[in-house]
Amino acid sequence: MALSGRRGAPEVWGCDRRREYARMALDGGAIARACTEREIAACDVVVVCVPVLRSLGIIRSLGPRMRPGSVLTDAGSVKADVVRAGQAAMARGAEFVGGHPIAGTENSGFPAAFPGLFKGRSVILTPGAGNSDGALRRVESLWRRAGARVLRMDARTHDHVFAYVSHLPHAVAYALVHSVATLDSRVPLGYSAGGFRDFTRIASSNPEMWKDIVLQNRGEVLRAARHYRRNFALLEGLIRRRDAAGLLSYFRKAKKTRDGL
Amino acid sequence: MALSGRRGAPEVWGCDRRREYARMALDGGAIARACTEREIAACDVVVVCVPVLRSLGIIRSLGPRMRPGSVLTDAGSVKADVVRAGQAAMARGAEFVGGHPIAGTENSGFPAAFPGLFKGRSVILTPGAGNSDGALRRVESLWRRAGARVLRMDARTHDHVFAYVSHLPHAVAYALVHSVATLDSRVPLGYSAGGFRDFTRIASSNPEMWKDIVLQNRGEVLRAARHYRRNFALLEGLIRRRDAAGLLSYFRKAKKTRDGL
Repeated sequence: MALSGRRGAPEVWGCDRRREYARMALDGGAIARACTEREIAACDVVVVCVPVLRSLGIIRSLGPRMRPGSVLTDAGSVKADVVRAGQAAMARGAEFVGGHPIAGTENSGFPAAFPGLFKGRSVILTPGAGNSDGALRRVESLWRRAGARVLRMDARTHDHVFAYVSHLPHAVAYALVHSVATLDSRVPLGYSAGGFRDFTRIASSNPEMWKDIVLQNRGEVLRAARHYRRNFALLEGLIRRRDAAGLLSYFRKAKKTRDGL
Repeated sequence: MALSGRRGAPEVWGCDRRREYARMALDGGAIARACTEREIAACDVVVVCVPVLRSLGIIRSLGPRMRPGSVLTDAGSVKADVVRAGQAAMARGAEFVGGHPIAGTENSGFPAAFPGLFKGRSVILTPGAGNSDGALRRVESLWRRAGARVLRMDARTHDHVFAYVSHLPHAVAYALVHSVATLDSRVPLGYSAGGFRDFTRIASSNPEMWKDIVLQNRGEVLRAARHYRRNFALLEGLIRRRDAAGLLSYFRKAKKTRDGL
């Protein structure tokens, strides 16, 4: 949708295990052809967009069949494992380039797509040792056509950063809603106005996608969770000891960091 | 601002320890008069809007000087202590009615005010044993004029509910940003696009106000925090043990609760 109908746009094929989504994309003019999984390997650039654990299997099966000069890339939220698998799986002359568009909502599947989804958003590419400048530039130009700006970062740094700015916040939001869901007393959440609903929006995200993300970035997520848990316990301690000065300084430090974003 | 200029609007006086805010309110037509703290007791209805710990002192000093038939109310996020203090402090014939408008942004002070702040939002009143229907209706009608809908809840239920839907989420957001702020490695937060910034917006709230709230609702906040911490630890355990089925069910339960809001 973000590419089609634009001047000089590439011919886009689509493949989805849910046939009705492929049909909707075709009918809506988002893709020129709904192809089979076998036919994907004929493309010049292939973008794998499935939950990260499943993308490993697709990359391993597709990589060896890609043509020389073609590029396989992905859209997953965790990069180190995928880049390793991609580099190992590719046919001679074909390249894997790790990618992560920082875009999307709590919804998924074709019905959640809209043409401006990537407009003004960042896409991070995580080049590996084997990547040529040409392959990186082809993937970059695809995302730029879709309206995104492209940044490069090494895969391990990416996974560390996103454990903090994305994976941990999702875990926290899920745990917060899970707490309310497991309360003995019924808490009338309707009273919370927009506050609780807005804050926990990301806990409405796709459970399978997030199960995959926390498992694939397990080491970094657990490290970030441990660090966060210590910070939360510190705050609990300040409240327990009625440490007004400590609370003020804790909240001020957080506010200053947040305001600086 | 929400009351002035409307047909049948009451005459609004304002008192702020920051003189420049009283001046701004007067110049902007939000108040008819900037009065002194002594003069407040001459009013028919007084609304105390300061961080909750400081409101206790104001209520205790103002209550005994209020005139028969007048009503003192507040706008604090914690109710049990304030209602107790208010009931005990009032002059004969005057009443205290606890109130909590579920409105506002992460900003505070007169510059954060706008006429539609309460429009369509809820205000919770927490009637005590000594409240007459007349006093409750006067406070209700004030908030309705400002555009809000008014609900009633007993003060202890209020404090339990808001520990979960508001105070705990704020603690969590502050702890999350505090974690990032205390990282050894520098996490380039700019990469997180809107996600982290949106999720942690409430960590930009007024530190003094939130220091007061968590201290005044200390018991309920600590109970909710303990419960949440167990739920977070449960999630960490699922990730540590690579329990895919458990993670899926945990995330699904949370998503179902969140989607039901």
